[in-house]
Order: sequence, then structure tokens, then C-alpha cells
Amino acid sequence: MKTQVCIIGGGPSGLLLSQLLHTRGIDSIVLERKTKQYVLSRIRAGVLEQGLVDLMEQAGCADRLHAEGFVHDGTLISYGQEMFRVDFTEHAGRPVVVYGQTEVTADLYAAREAAGGAIEFEVEDVELHDLDTDAPYVTYRVHGDDRRIDCDFVAGCDGFHGVSRKTIPTKDRKEFEKVYPFGWLGILSETPPVNDELIYANSPSGFALCSMRNDNLSRYYIQVSMYDSPEDWSDAQFWAELKRRLPADQVGNLVTGPSIEKSIAPLRSFVCETMRWHRLFLCGDAAHIVPPTGAKGLNSAASDVHYLFEALCDFYKGGSTARIDAYAQTALARIWKVSRFSWWMSSLLHRFPEQSEFDSRMQIAELEFLRSNRAAQAAMAQNYVGLPY
Amino acid sequence: MKTQVCIIGGGPSGLLLSQLLHTRGIDSIVLERKTKQYVLSRIRAGVLEQGLVDLMEQAGCADRLHAEGFVHDGTLISYGQEMFRVDFTEHAGRPVVVYGQTEVTADLYAAREAAGGAIEFEVEDVELHDLDTDAPYVTYRVHGDDRRIDCDFVAGCDGFHGVSRKTIPTKDRKEFEKVYPFGWLGILSETPPVNDELIYANSPSGFALCSMRNDNLSRYYIQVSMYDSPEDWSDAQFWAELKRRLPADQVGNLVTGPSIEKSIAPLRSFVCETMRWHRLFLCGDAAHIVPPTGAKGLNSAASDVHYLFEALCDFYKGGSTARIDAYAQTALARIWKVSRFSWWMSSLLHRFPEQSEFDSRMQIAELEFLRSNRAAQAAMAQNYVGLPY
Repeated sequence: MKTQVCIIGGGPSGLLLSQLLHTRGIDSIVLERKTKQYVLSRIRAGVLEQGLVDLMEQAGCADRLHAEGFVHDGTLISYGQEMFRVDFTEHAGRPVVVYGQTEVTADLYAAREAAGGAIEFEVEDVELHDLDTDAPYVTYRVHGDDRRIDCDFVAGCDGFHGVSRKTIPTKDRKEFEKVYPFGWLGILSETPPVNDELIYANSPSGFALCSMRNDNLSRYYIQVSMYDSPEDWSDAQFWAELKRRLPADQVGNLVTGPSIEKSIAPLRSFVCETMRWHRLFLCGDAAHIVPPTGAKGLNSAASDVHYLFEALCDFYKGGSTARIDAYAQTALARIWKVSRFSWWMSSLLHRFPEQSEFDSRMQIAELEFLRSNRAAQAAMAQNYVGLPY
Repeated sequence: MKTQVCIIGGGPSGLLLSQLLHTRGIDSIVLERKTKQYVLSRIRAGVLEQGLVDLMEQAGCADRLHAEGFVHDGTLISYGQEMFRVDFTEHAGRPVVVYGQTEVTADLYAAREAAGGAIEFEVEDVELHDLDTDAPYVTYRVHGDDRRIDCDFVAGCDGFHGVSRKTIPTKDRKEFEKVYPFGWLGILSETPPVNDELIYANSPSGFALCSMRNDNLSRYYIQVSMYDSPEDWSDAQFWAELKRRLPADQVGNLVTGPSIEKSIAPLRSFVCETMRWHRLFLCGDAAHIVPPTGAKGLNSAASDVHYLFEALCDFYKGGSTARIDAYAQTALARIWKVSRFSWWMSSLLHRFPEQSEFDSRMQIAELEFLRSNRAAQAAMAQNYVGLPY
């Protein structure tokens, strides 16, 4: 087979890139290790920056997002019994949209399928070849058949554990990592959200987050030991601990119910330099991971897709390689800032094992400064709604 | 002897309080453990917030400050070969004034002496008594004489090692501390400053600060090991290391010369809760220490003096104890924010022994965000010129 861009990974980054390229007549094939069903069952965050909403529009996939997504003009931050709000539109000129990553992925699949886009599922043994030549190709096996795709470029959208990053020789990449010494225990419950807006909570017992998918589907998280597993937490224990971490007046509004999903996610910051190796471009989790605080995972992938899409359009339109050559530097300049914001929000809101009483007071002082200072709120809001591409 | 307010400590906080009280006809006596000569030989920072300048004006001591101080409208921040400027007037509506703490102290002594203010030097064995009654008193020895001062209130302006804080029973105070694992080696040299404005430098070799007293008196600092002593560093070694930590285009302007003073200061964050115990009020270093990054030491003492002065004026004017009762809470609310700012600037600019490569990139990402984002610059500028009282 032959295509212009071979996209490794059928998650939202790969699909979005494929669909965007399609709108410009650039051909791609997407290779996905799992089934579509599996990909669509992965529950992830659900706060979309305007930049990602714009890309979904550009891809022709934003109708359901606009119909069913919830526009959030601000967020709530609590510490102990105190709570304040940061207004996004006031400080950053635009809101965010609450719409699950799973829904984004479903919308992109629907669009790719409607357009007859080529997606291969359950591919195995993917290998990238001759990336440092003008004629790279990808080999893989699917249902026992060995196949090969010749292409101009490879987009590595295959996540942290994917083959793409690992194909870059170790001498040509440098990896930066921080593992946070705790996890997030998250549940989905078919209950109305405790508040119209998200609540990020710093409490003496640890971090909590009140989020939602819709009017009757809530998503709650609490910081737990990195050694815990979901079975260690009954629903009753989860709700009791969540209530301990929220201001009393919010607890009064909290409707509890059985969890329909319960899982623990580790927290990690990771950045790979470079994000490009000859004809291979890394996008999203393949190149960087952020802790979920601030909901930057999918959004940071979207900015990579944006830069890569623009670079490929330039190349196929007029042959210019300027943006292709600048891709790693351009994408990484934004990624490091996003990584810093996610690290800052995580540092500000969690309880760390080695945290001294002085450190705890620095968190409270920073929250009180944020509460009292418009410039600090603006800096936070501008990061939260998304730094400019 | 009898007075209204007995002030322990003849540094700038105690003198400023004494002089301010004098302008309202409130009587005080200042007790100082050292000689005046000794106090005036202590070299400290020299960046004054507008709030302190206003207090000096209110005290009638600002003439020389206005004549000889240097108004700084911004500061420079470098990392590696990059450098950018944060404009104070643009982002915070006011500048800072560069004027040595030693000069502030000298001006205050001149004013107290001109007014016939009572200051006892070389006092020993100061003890505070009956602070939890309406009739506190202070005993001490001076040149072999035992003396006693009866007063309404005691102001503890006697620094970190002074007797005032230690007089508060340990059950009634809680202390928060962070010791930074490095020191600042500072020199004074009779050379023109490398730049018109201060340069705060983050470099792979560690922090450096280029400051000044006047057109021909420069003050430079470099981060060094906490185990170093000034004798470990020749002038030549100091200048070589400083040059390594500044952008090359600044090094080109650096005029070196013999040091006329060389010393190492440790870096510590410290806050004591409470700052009031019955008739005793703590001000400045007696209650809190900040690392010197951001020059908040004297300025944070000044805000305490402001709050205490207002509280005492209320009391002596109409008998209201409302501000006296609120002193600790009011002063600490600002002190924690100032402590956070000093901790943040220190964390952002120094090299820590345990710092990972990821941590170093977070510093650079934060500096690049600060460079690129007006709101972040405003938040920094508003802290640097001084949060409102």
C-alpha cells in the first residue's frame, strides 16, 4: 500500500490529524493496535481548549460537541473551607468546553468512516523503516497477514508505550521525567454534578477534583497512595473521603450513588526531546505526558496536531519544508509551558509525602495570593483555556 | 523609667516605629544590644518598596532617600544567554527605590537624635515581664546598671535571635521554617554597576544577582555551597564565576575591581505564628525571615511597622483595641504572601542539589512563560514593588 502520511495510533490525535489532512486532500492511513471498541472505551479527561474546538471545527467534527458540550466560563478552587472562582472569559477572553475525550474520539471515527478513511485495527508488530530517507515505510501484521505501507511521512500518535518514540535512536533523543508519589482514584457516577463548574480542592487530606460529563454523569477524583488499587476503595469509602476534602457548603450539595467505573491513574510528567526525527513526527502522549491536573493531556496533543498539520499542508501545497524543519522546536516551546502549568497545578494542590508544614503554608499562601490578585488569576486562566498556538 | 511603647531593637524596624510614634506624640524608648556604629556597619539589601518610602516620608526621614536613591522602573532576568525585562510601572503602577538599608538606618538615627528620642545602646540581659497584664515592664543592664522600663506595650523588633519571640511561651507560638541548601556570597566593589537595573540570573552554574548602591558602588552575589566561607573565594575567582553566570553581552559591560566587603549569607524562610502575645508585638526579623531573593527582608518589616503603628495610633487616639487585636492576623496575611514570593523567586532562580533535569526545565519553562505572558509579569511586578498594605 502507499499513502502520503502513515499515522501510527488511532486515538484522538491520530484521527484528528488524519481528518484534518483529508480536508486538504492529503491522504493518510491510520494503524491502531486495538479494536475500535477498545479505543472508545478508554475514559479520559473532558475539558477542551478553544484551540482544540477550533481544530474539530476545521475537521468538520464539531456539531455534536457544540450541541452537547458544556461551556465553562470559570473554575472553582477550594482550600479547607475556603473557595474562590477564576473567571476564564474575563481573564483570558474565552471559555473551555466540557466534552469527554471519548466523545471526541467517537466523533472523529464517525467522520473518518463517513469519508471512507483508511483505518486498520488490531495491527501487530508495527515497525518504522528508513525514516532517515525520502522513502520511509511501515511494516505490520494484521490478522496473520504481513503488510507494508510506503509513505512520505510517519506521524507517531501511538502514545507513551508506542513504537514511534522508541524508534528514534537513544542518542538522538533526551527524555525528562517526574513521577509524582501518588495516584488519582476516579469514579464515574450517574448523579448530578455537585456544582455547575469544576472544583479543584486542596485539603489537608489531599487533593480532590469534582468534574462532570453531563447533567446526570459526574466524574470525581481523589488523590490516593500510589500503592492503592481500586479494590481498596469501596464506593462508601470514596464518597466519605471526597466529602472530607470539600468545603462543607459543597458537601451539602453532593449527591452520591453507585460508581459505574472506578480506576486509578498514576501521575507523571514526561517530555521527549526531540519530537521529530527525519521523516517521523511525534504527537501527543508519544512525546509527552502531563499529570491530569489542569486537563492538558488531549489539549497538548491537539497543539502538536495543529503544528504538524500546518507543516504538512505547507509541504504538500508548495514544497516548503520550513515548518517541517521547525516542528520540534515550535511544538516543544509550547509543550514545555503546558508541562510547567500542569506541574504547577499539581504542586499547588496535592499533598506530597515529604511536604513540610512550611511547604503546606506556601500552597495556602499561593492560593490566597491567587484569590486576591487579578494578574495571577489571569496568568492561570490564560494557561487553563490554552496558550496561543 | 516609664514610656508608652518600649521598643526592643535599634535596627530599622524599631527606629522607624519609634519615629512614626513620635510624629503622633506617642512616647517610646528603644533598647539596642549593640553600638550605633555596629548597627550602621551591617550591610543589607537596598531595594525599597513604595510602602516603605511612604512610611519614611510619614516619619519625616525621606529627604536624602529622594535625593540619593535611584528609582528603578523594572528589573532584568536572565537564563543562560537569554535576558528579558519586567517593567514595574507598566504592570504595577509604581517603581522601587534602590537605597541601602544602612542609609535608611542612618537617616532614622539622625531623625531620632534630632528629636531627642531615647535610645539605649549596649543593653544586656533584656527581659520582658508581665506581658499578659496591663502593666508590662522590661528589665535590662547597661554599663553595669540594672534598669527597668514600665510601659503599655512592647514592640519586639530585635531580629531572629532576639529575646522577644522567645519570650512567647512555646505552646502559644508555632514556627515554620525552610533552610535552603546554599548561601549567597556577596561582594561590594567600587566599580560602576554592570547595568542600570538589577539582573537576576538563573544559570546552569547557579544563581547570580547584579545589584548596586550608586554609580560607583556595585553589589554582586553568587550562589555558593552552604559549606563555603568567604576566604574560599578570591576576588578573581568571584569575578570569574559571576561572568560564567551572566549572558555574554552583559559580561562585556562588567567592570571588575577589588572587593571592599565580602561575606556569605545563608538563605532561610521562617515565619512565627503568632506575631502578638498579649502586650507584645513582633515586627520584622523577630517574626519572619525571607531569603534575600526579591529583597523583601526590610520591606516585610516595614509592613509590620505600618500595621502596628496604625493599631497603636487607634489605641492612643480613642482607646480602640480593634486593630491591636487584629495585628497578628493582618500582618501575617501579608507576610505569608511575601514569604511565598521570596520562596518562589528563590525556587525559580537557584540550582538545588537534588534538582533533576526535569526540574531545571521547569525553571526555564517558567522563565519563558514569564517572558511571554503579560499577566505573569504583572503578578511578579505587583509582588516585587510590594503588595498593598
